[in-house]
Amino acid sequence: MRILGIDPGYAIVGIGIIEYVGNKFKVVEYTKITTEAHSDFPTRLKKVFDELNCIINEYKPDAIAIEELFFNNNAKTAINVGQGRGVCLLCGAINNIPVFEYTPLQIKQAVVGYGRAEKNQVQQMVKILLNLEKIPKPDDVADALAVAVCHAHSYKVNSKFGGF
Amino acid sequence: MRILGIDPGYAIVGIGIIEYVGNKFKVVEYTKITTEAHSDFPTRLKKVFDELNCIINEYKPDAIAIEELFFNNNAKTAINVGQGRGVCLLCGAINNIPVFEYTPLQIKQAVVGYGRAEKNQVQQMVKILLNLEKIPKPDDVADALAVAVCHAHSYKVNSKFGGF
Repeated sequence: MRILGIDPGYAIVGIGIIEYVGNKFKVVEYTKITTEAHSDFPTRLKKVFDELNCIINEYKPDAIAIEELFFNNNAKTAINVGQGRGVCLLCGAINNIPVFEYTPLQIKQAVVGYGRAEKNQVQQMVKILLNLEKIPKPDDVADALAVAVCHAHSYKVNSKFGGF
Repeated sequence: MRILGIDPGYAIVGIGIIEYVGNKFKVVEYTKITTEAHSDFPTRLKKVFDELNCIINEYKPDAIAIEELFFNNNAKTAINVGQGRGVCLLCGAINNIPVFEYTPLQIKQAVVGYGRAEKNQVQQMVKILLNLEKIPKPDDVADALAVAVCHAHSYKVNSKFGGF
């Protein structure tokens, strides 16, 4: 199964593509989509849309895994990141690829084994599980790989019970 | 000048298309895009994307006017409406139509004449300015027409000073 993990946003969108076959992970590609701060917002969203569609067409994932957003105080940021995230979800629907959403808690639980893990622990586990030489940078890319790993583990657990 | 006003969202997107020529308004069309609550979110966003692209292709607006979102407390709603709004902004960029954003204050000021106007006053003014028999329903559609009127007035004011 090929999984496209996405860490959504509008300035940086983290992208991590992995293969998960017979309990083994293989990294296919990881990268980021960046948009320029001085561009107007619709243009930034179009860049995310165009590049993400290109990535989906090139790597043909079976599933998209994306982090759920949580904001406690900054509604302005929530709206802007939500706008970027909406474009990512749309790309899934347009390309007819199922989209799975995971909370930060679920991701930590699936990757490290407990929900209160620190960011650095998640990144270390991503590095180990995916057999990488070092932690991918920026954090958005490491986070995208983490949500992809989370989906692989969740898929496995759920498929045992016929959930998928 | 033909203006497409949008009241953004994910369950209902209000749509109002007006012509503004020589200080006179003419309503071209008003409608709404609705998405089904039981559909998954990417599918709902795709419906907004497909229908809004159809509307843009059919009515070929010169400008898109869209309300800015404000949320004080519910970040979950902010994210979801933000996701729908992102798709609307994207449609502007894809079709190469400039997008103008207005705050609720600016809309009230432009339509009624003062920023603290009640919702009902805005709707009454929309009805009068656009020579409609009654206030369009639901509110999302009236709001979409209001932001279109706001852009027409703002465009006029700004173009005097070479702002457009």
